[in-house]
Amino acid sequence: MAEKRPFDILNSSLNNTVIVGLKGGVEFRGLMVAYDVHMNIVLENAEQLANGEVKRGVGTILLRGDSVTYISPS
Amino acid sequence: MAEKRPFDILNSSLNNTVIVGLKGGVEFRGLMVAYDVHMNIVLENAEQLANGEVKRGVGTILLRGDSVTYISPS
Amino acid sequence: MAEKRPFDILNSSLNNTVIVGLKGGVEFRGLMVAYDVHMNIVLENAEQLANGEVKRGVGTILLRGDSVTYISPS
Amino acid sequence: MAEKRPFDILNSSLNNTVIVGLKGGVEFRGLMVAYDVHMNIVLENAEQLANGEVKRGVGTILLRGDSVTYISPS
Amino acid sequence: MAEKRPFDILNSSLNNTVIVGLKGGVEFRGLMVAYDVHMNIVLENAEQLANGEVKRGVGTILLRGDSVTYISPS
Amino acid sequence: MAEKRPFDILNSSLNNTVIVGLKGGVEFRGLMVAYDVHMNIVLENAEQLANGEVKRGVGTILLRGDSVTYISPS
Amino acid sequence: MAEKRPFDILNSSLNNTVIVGLKGGVEFRGLMVAYDVHMNIVLENAEQLANGEVKRGVGTILLRGDSVTYISPS
Repeated sequence: MAEKRPFDILNSSLNNTVIVGLKGGVEFRGLMVAYDVHMNIVLENAEQLANGEVKRGVGTILLRGDSVTYISPS
Repeated sequence: MAEKRPFDILNSSLNNTVIVGLKGGVEFRGLMVAYDVHMNIVLENAEQLANGEVKRGVGTILLRGDSVTYISPS
Repeated sequence: MAEKRPFDILNSSLNNTVIVGLKGGVEFRGLMVAYDVHMNIVLENAEQLANGEVKRGVGTILLRGDSVTYISPS
Repeated sequence: MAEKRPFDILNSSLNNTVIVGLKGGVEFRGLMVAYDVHMNIVLENAEQLANGEVKRGVGTILLRGDSVTYISPS
Repeated sequence: MAEKRPFDILNSSLNNTVIVGLKGGVEFRGLMVAYDVHMNIVLENAEQLANGEVKRGVGTILLRGDSVTYISPS
Repeated sequence: MAEKRPFDILNSSLNNTVIVGLKGGVEFRGLMVAYDVHMNIVLENAEQLANGEVKRGVGTILLRGDSVTYISPS
Repeated sequence: MAEKRPFDILNSSLNNTVIVGLKGGVEFRGLMVAYDVHMNIVLENAEQLANGEVKRGVGTILLRGDSVTYISPS
């Protein structure tokens, strides 16, 4: 049966790899180890992507929810 | 008789294919399996579109309501 | 006598054709079948316009109030 | 004696011609027949301007307050 | 002794000439005859500036606080 | 020992020269004589900077907190 | 065990070097000596970066939370 609440996908993606898109088009991919109701998200072993290619490694990163556009389990 | 509340269209589109437009012009098409009052939306089997053409498959994706511009049943 | 409240024009345009402008300059034209206090709007038989010309048909579409710039009865 | 509250100018401009500037630089000129505390504004016999020249007639138009940058009695 | 609250400068500039900068870089110069806590501002005998030069006269104008970036007594 | 609250730096910079960055990349440098909890800031003897160079003197200026990106003691 | 709340990473990064990304793509790197719930952040010995290279030293700087996009321990 389908999920009913959007935040369920965040919970089920915890400790899994996700791609997060930010306003302006920047994407980060990494292990999601924390999130909150504002969609603030912490990734570990994260990489910044440009056109789907790895641009640079950034280690641990806190993405501010206000800047988040989408989150996709990888 | 015409629908009276905009969110009715979200409810009637649940588990159907929709196109979602985001700020900046990006579009995603997929099966809408969840939404909430903030217009946070979860699509499954989703594809990112560019000028109406499929740019890439993205599987499951949570689109943040604050970034959503429009939603259209496909 | 002149109307006194801006939302009166939404009510009087219900089930009539309107043009809705969004942030970024995109316009949609269609039959307005629903709206709410946030200016979320549902159009049916809608078309996306570019410079006043029809760019594509989009059927039914929910436009998020936060993205709406103007609404004009057609 | 000088006016003391910004909204006084809206009230005194009711049923007069005004120019309204929107975010992004678009301007509309028309007869202001309604406004509210959010600066939502309704113009009648309105025209869209580009660099001070008439670009097109738009008849009646509701401008969403959130998009309004300035209002000037014509 | 220095002023302690930013709005003091608005009060002391009432009925004096100010330059107001808006988001996007547009500037207006005129006699400030009204303001409120949202920084909505009314200028009289106002001129729109471009790179410090007068672009056009606009008479009386209400600038929406949400669009205001800065205000400087002239 | 390190400061614990971001606003401490505003308080300790009062009546000192600061550089304030605004959205869009504009910078102003001047003597900070007032601020409030919204980060509205008043500078005296202020100069607008472009790429670190003085572009023009602006005297006293009120910078609206909503537009402020950063503040740095000079 | 993984952290559960995004702000934990701010607390654990206090008095350590972080990179902070702002809207528009500007980055600052420095010692984080203060933060609050709005993600207002104070860096000491800070440098502005452009494409990962040091563009200029800025000493102490208060970054306004509303402008912050991401924070990454260095």
